[in-house]
Amino acid sequence: MARPQVLVVAGTHGNEINGPWLLEQWGKNPDLINTCGCQVETTTGNPGARADGRRYRDRDLNRSFRPDLLERVRCHPEQADHEMRRALELLEAFGADGQTPCAFVIDLHSTTSAMGNCLVVYGRRPADLALAALVQARLGLPVYLHEADAAQQGFLVERWPCGVVIEVGPVPQNVRRHDIVDQTKLALQACLEALGSVVAGSACYPDQLVIHRHLGSIDLPRGDDGGATALIHPQLQNNNWVPLGIGDPLFITADGTTLPFEGPAGAVPVFINEAAYAEKAIAFSLTNRECWPLSPEWDKGLKTLLGVDQRGEPL
Amino acid sequence: MARPQVLVVAGTHGNEINGPWLLEQWGKNPDLINTCGCQVETTTGNPGARADGRRYRDRDLNRSFRPDLLERVRCHPEQADHEMRRALELLEAFGADGQTPCAFVIDLHSTTSAMGNCLVVYGRRPADLALAALVQARLGLPVYLHEADAAQQGFLVERWPCGVVIEVGPVPQNVRRHDIVDQTKLALQACLEALGSVVAGSACYPDQLVIHRHLGSIDLPRGDDGGATALIHPQLQNNNWVPLGIGDPLFITADGTTLPFEGPAGAVPVFINEAAYAEKAIAFSLTNRECWPLSPEWDKGLKTLLGVDQRGEPL
Repeated sequence: MARPQVLVVAGTHGNEINGPWLLEQWGKNPDLINTCGCQVETTTGNPGARADGRRYRDRDLNRSFRPDLLERVRCHPEQADHEMRRALELLEAFGADGQTPCAFVIDLHSTTSAMGNCLVVYGRRPADLALAALVQARLGLPVYLHEADAAQQGFLVERWPCGVVIEVGPVPQNVRRHDIVDQTKLALQACLEALGSVVAGSACYPDQLVIHRHLGSIDLPRGDDGGATALIHPQLQNNNWVPLGIGDPLFITADGTTLPFEGPAGAVPVFINEAAYAEKAIAFSLTNRECWPLSPEWDKGLKTLLGVDQRGEPL
Repeated sequence: MARPQVLVVAGTHGNEINGPWLLEQWGKNPDLINTCGCQVETTTGNPGARADGRRYRDRDLNRSFRPDLLERVRCHPEQADHEMRRALELLEAFGADGQTPCAFVIDLHSTTSAMGNCLVVYGRRPADLALAALVQARLGLPVYLHEADAAQQGFLVERWPCGVVIEVGPVPQNVRRHDIVDQTKLALQACLEALGSVVAGSACYPDQLVIHRHLGSIDLPRGDDGGATALIHPQLQNNNWVPLGIGDPLFITADGTTLPFEGPAGAVPVFINEAAYAEKAIAFSLTNRECWPLSPEWDKGLKTLLGVDQRGEPL
């Protein structure tokens, strides 16, 4: 039977410390998570940043997998910074053509935003959507489709043939919480079960995948000096995944003035008040909730990567 | 009438960004907080660390006001690091003998721990206890008395004749929340009102001050490699200020094993899961809740610093 080769990365951001702890404990106790027949490799995304307790050293590792940056570090390694080098290292070690080739990657993240337990997929690759659909059918968790954002490129999972991010919050940076570790474990287990079920020919797809398609990002209101003149409104703070109506409160100034939402009506906010996005001028992002009927192409894409035919037999 | 000279510091830790934002907004809108007749100076505790988005550069500024460190930077400035220099700078600018002398300091902090809105006092100085009693009578907030801890010394407020810390949480590092800013404003306003009321001769003291006296700190369970082998138990996570009974759950391992509290019964936990205390090997601290009857010495200490007699007339 095919053995899906799965890379599980934690600590891609050095101050997101719940995923790394989960992998450490799993390393000590193999019964903690069932590999479901997958050949699992685990690694720390950014050990240098993790040692510093910071998101990154020179640049965000999870924006450093842009083809142009990878090309530059290959051709001019002396010009590369810490994260450019680490991105190439990870690909050389665990990429599809790496020393220990992995077709699948699961990247464990946490957020200060009250996102709950969710998946993030990048672009519309059939295998990613198939995996997301299987996990959503199992756990019911929301899926954020990040695409078409020129300002945010070069995510780690994009450089593997199939990959998703597990994103869990709210939790402060550099804080471990049992509930966050537990939710991360649940979603990781579901991903491995999904891959295992396709290999076993027992995958149970839903009729549709509910996705939240990225529309764009909104910054805080700012004054002439660039400083924020208002904060996220308390009514918005924990309301990720809840559609906004025109006039709903978005921001509040220090003297209590509320700034309302002006549209588009029904847009669904995500990543509200994520600490690390302040430097990216993102107070939250807006998405469109869409129900996509399951496409046979998705399952086909996943099966091709798994090396199994439609009945689950090795190709 | 006497004008209490009060220094309000925010951003003593560079990644605690709610207090600094409040002071910025107050600077733009003087009506935001009533000075109640106080002469208020405001400053950023650690601008360098704030620019970096980190707690500190070389060492925790709020442990850098130890007399031995201050003496060293005075005698050997070339040996001083960033925070040692900044501690001396703040004292030379705003200390009791500084260029703009302030008898009072209010230091605005935030925490990832679910501490709510509270005051921290260091040692048992009469004027501090008087100010804390007046604020507690007004807002009902808990007071943490930090003392007799050889591992934690050199707090900023200790180097002013009278000073308290306002501590508000939970909020992640580098995240602003309206509720946290609002609670900080409320406590700061209450401090200024308390000082103003003593000057005006209208101070209304309670019969007692309820304090939580520091007993010691507890680290996470750790393995041979120094790594944490368990996390704060979910039932403890948000239970600051709630007395612990023998057998109450303290920690939980990745496989779900609970480690119970072994005493002393009735000890009250504080600063549960504060991100910055991991490096200090503190998962939480334990306190003893005590009701201290009001002492006439406290009011006397405050009045002496305010330069008023028992009837509120200038000395």
